[in-house]
Amino acid sequence: MFSTVLIANRGEIALRVARTCREMGIRSVAVYSTADRESAVVRFADEAVHIGPPPARSSYLNMPAIIEAARNTGAEAIHPGYGFLSEDPDFAEICEANGITFIGPPPHVMQRLGDKSEARAVMAAAGLPVLPGSDGALGSPTEAAEIAARVGYPVILKAVAGGGGRGMSVVRDPDELAWAYQDTRARARAVFGDERLYLERYIDRARHVEVQVLCDGRGGAVHLGERDCSAQRRHQKLVEESPAPNLPAETREAMCAAALRGATAVGYVGAGTFEFVVTPANRFHLLEINCRIQVEHPVTEMVTGVDIVREQLTIAAGAPLTFGQDDVVPRGVAIECRINAEDPARAFAPTPGRLTEFVPPGGPCVRIDTHAYPGWTVGPDYDSLLAKAIVWAPDRERAIARAERALGEFRVAGGGVHTTLGFLRRLLAHPRFRAGEHTTDLVDTMTSNVAEPAPAEPAPVP
Amino acid sequence: MFSTVLIANRGEIALRVARTCREMGIRSVAVYSTADRESAVVRFADEAVHIGPPPARSSYLNMPAIIEAARNTGAEAIHPGYGFLSEDPDFAEICEANGITFIGPPPHVMQRLGDKSEARAVMAAAGLPVLPGSDGALGSPTEAAEIAARVGYPVILKAVAGGGGRGMSVVRDPDELAWAYQDTRARARAVFGDERLYLERYIDRARHVEVQVLCDGRGGAVHLGERDCSAQRRHQKLVEESPAPNLPAETREAMCAAALRGATAVGYVGAGTFEFVVTPANRFHLLEINCRIQVEHPVTEMVTGVDIVREQLTIAAGAPLTFGQDDVVPRGVAIECRINAEDPARAFAPTPGRLTEFVPPGGPCVRIDTHAYPGWTVGPDYDSLLAKAIVWAPDRERAIARAERALGEFRVAGGGVHTTLGFLRRLLAHPRFRAGEHTTDLVDTMTSNVAEPAPAEPAPVP
Repeated sequence: MFSTVLIANRGEIALRVARTCREMGIRSVAVYSTADRESAVVRFADEAVHIGPPPARSSYLNMPAIIEAARNTGAEAIHPGYGFLSEDPDFAEICEANGITFIGPPPHVMQRLGDKSEARAVMAAAGLPVLPGSDGALGSPTEAAEIAARVGYPVILKAVAGGGGRGMSVVRDPDELAWAYQDTRARARAVFGDERLYLERYIDRARHVEVQVLCDGRGGAVHLGERDCSAQRRHQKLVEESPAPNLPAETREAMCAAALRGATAVGYVGAGTFEFVVTPANRFHLLEINCRIQVEHPVTEMVTGVDIVREQLTIAAGAPLTFGQDDVVPRGVAIECRINAEDPARAFAPTPGRLTEFVPPGGPCVRIDTHAYPGWTVGPDYDSLLAKAIVWAPDRERAIARAERALGEFRVAGGGVHTTLGFLRRLLAHPRFRAGEHTTDLVDTMTSNVAEPAPAEPAPVP
Repeated sequence: MFSTVLIANRGEIALRVARTCREMGIRSVAVYSTADRESAVVRFADEAVHIGPPPARSSYLNMPAIIEAARNTGAEAIHPGYGFLSEDPDFAEICEANGITFIGPPPHVMQRLGDKSEARAVMAAAGLPVLPGSDGALGSPTEAAEIAARVGYPVILKAVAGGGGRGMSVVRDPDELAWAYQDTRARARAVFGDERLYLERYIDRARHVEVQVLCDGRGGAVHLGERDCSAQRRHQKLVEESPAPNLPAETREAMCAAALRGATAVGYVGAGTFEFVVTPANRFHLLEINCRIQVEHPVTEMVTGVDIVREQLTIAAGAPLTFGQDDVVPRGVAIECRINAEDPARAFAPTPGRLTEFVPPGGPCVRIDTHAYPGWTVGPDYDSLLAKAIVWAPDRERAIARAERALGEFRVAGGGVHTTLGFLRRLLAHPRFRAGEHTTDLVDTMTSNVAEPAPAEPAPVP
């Protein structure tokens, strides 16, 4: 096993990774930008290295500074967390070239799966159901219009380099396609530095269900069941749960089997997520594959008892999985709520400020993942995730009640800081959510009900 | 189910009970002494009633004030937590006389089990193994000496009204018995208002293992497995875990079966704990039965997934258990550490003060039960329990590593406040603890190694 691991990330996920390192007896090295010098992981990690100022390109995306920090601290491996460099095959290759293990799939696998249109083709060849759409990147608005006419409206335009719910547009009317094409392309260029787009049929009233897999690269491969992430605000997940409610057992089994088949086909190694769209008739189609730990991984940890970060580290160190599929016995229901420092009344605008009060909930079956603490300043430089509250209960009704209790316990105050705590409680109380019949349009329906100002594209969260 | 429940307690357990009430849709009423007016449960509960100043006899033991609070707030039931009035059959009867449900066993059962020497006799008759000792209360030092000579030294003198590890003395030398008799009797009178003593053979290098039972009073009875509570400082538990390490399966099964047999024999209703002493040869003998929720109940909740407070409330409302013994499938290992505001370097003297910093740990499989928060004043009036950190992991080695990680994350500061965090980490690192071979003498051996001043009797924690 590694003796030292550098964590090339910030916020709650950096602390999350450092915690497992500590438990495994691995020395952890945090890196931090000037804005994060007081962060919880800097306090907690065994060592911390300053790598530059915000913005991210000068710090958390600054490959030379990160590699130098790893070399100077004797780190044998780098855990990239999510976002930032976590799905960048170039960074994985640079790590390799420097004799440092990148904790993630091999670069060539990341390359293939990172190109969303290529991933689509590879997975279709492996027998996974994909939505009808373009084969590869679109060449022109005309081509897009031809394919859209063939697959039928509504369609969705997506950035080939996209992910995390950014750089996509739903088009319902052929007359809007040309404009949407230009607009989405411009946003893809701005956010991902790659303007290529592809197109798929869009499913209305769909659910987002994803399967967590672990592959050791030595033939060992298991899935850890699925997560329902249908509670999304404009393609950004807000509430996730495992198992997916009201999903027929045969759909679940077929979806998990498909994820393992896809992982095997592409030679996947490490922890990965196969995201599917599920139609009202419970047919499922692959959306994309994420080559990293996900924000919502704790719900899977709570129902399976598996520490996914530990498995990532173990696999990266070359060890085989120590358990098989039959050992994965999910129990009960887990729900995660993402609490953002945003003002729902002002289009969920981020609300930076210094926390004068921050008391998280506790008690039975409540897990809190947060980098926040009293005195921490929520800065304007990064995403607005303040904390994740994850709860477990024997059944979904009790899990919802526990989540509501936990959200109600939070005490957060500070000049200018608003949170989505109240909005999340409204969401948990919504009859469609309570019935487990919510689809990805629910939250946007709710927000449009509160007379929210014209939404702006979310700030690019690196 | 009740619509309103009054919680006749304070600190972490009052908040613990209020959390489950909230999750069940039950209105919670907190009561508080003047010293606790800023407490977490006062903030969290649906209503809060001031019942008097410290000390406890004017507030948390003040039956008329508590009954009046219940009547004024429409509470249909009272949850007594642990300590204070939780095992007082008179209080349970007064509740009944006022048409209020006492959440605990019927008064006559509490009466029989609260008299530790009668409980011994009842359980011996039900076939539970008890240690050789006196039949009922001792009449004189001479009688004590005769019985001690018969059962063999060492012996332990215990208060008939005792519990919670207080009011007991180990006697190794016949010459010391008369003095110990007088001394223990004086302490029993001071602490419990009842000077009666009984005597048992004392087992050196023993383990303390207890079994949690739930009985619905309608024939439904299950055990939730056992807890090892051998890490004790002068009969006060510090670290508890479930399952008990290195306990042979047949011993565990026999002990759990004995607890259910004893519960049935006495007509037990509610949540209760059968405490056993386990000899180095894995023979077990009943110590006592506790008619209340225990401080260490969360370790059982973490391995079984059962919310014990919910079951208490459900049973008290007259509902049958909704699950049977086969549905109780313990998973993994849970460990609880009690973090006290005490100074280990000064004989674990309580250290009151205002918390300027209080950041609890979080992340995977960590549960925090605490009433503390930044700005909370640890007062001199009550026990020194500051927080409980409970962790879960698939196996004991990882659970210990996780507990160490969690303890290391705590940030607690405040004028004059010391904690046992460092001491607990020393304990978790002790080879005997790590091997799961620790007995109830381990902690006292450790503390005597640090040249601690002559220990004083712990302050009476009501």
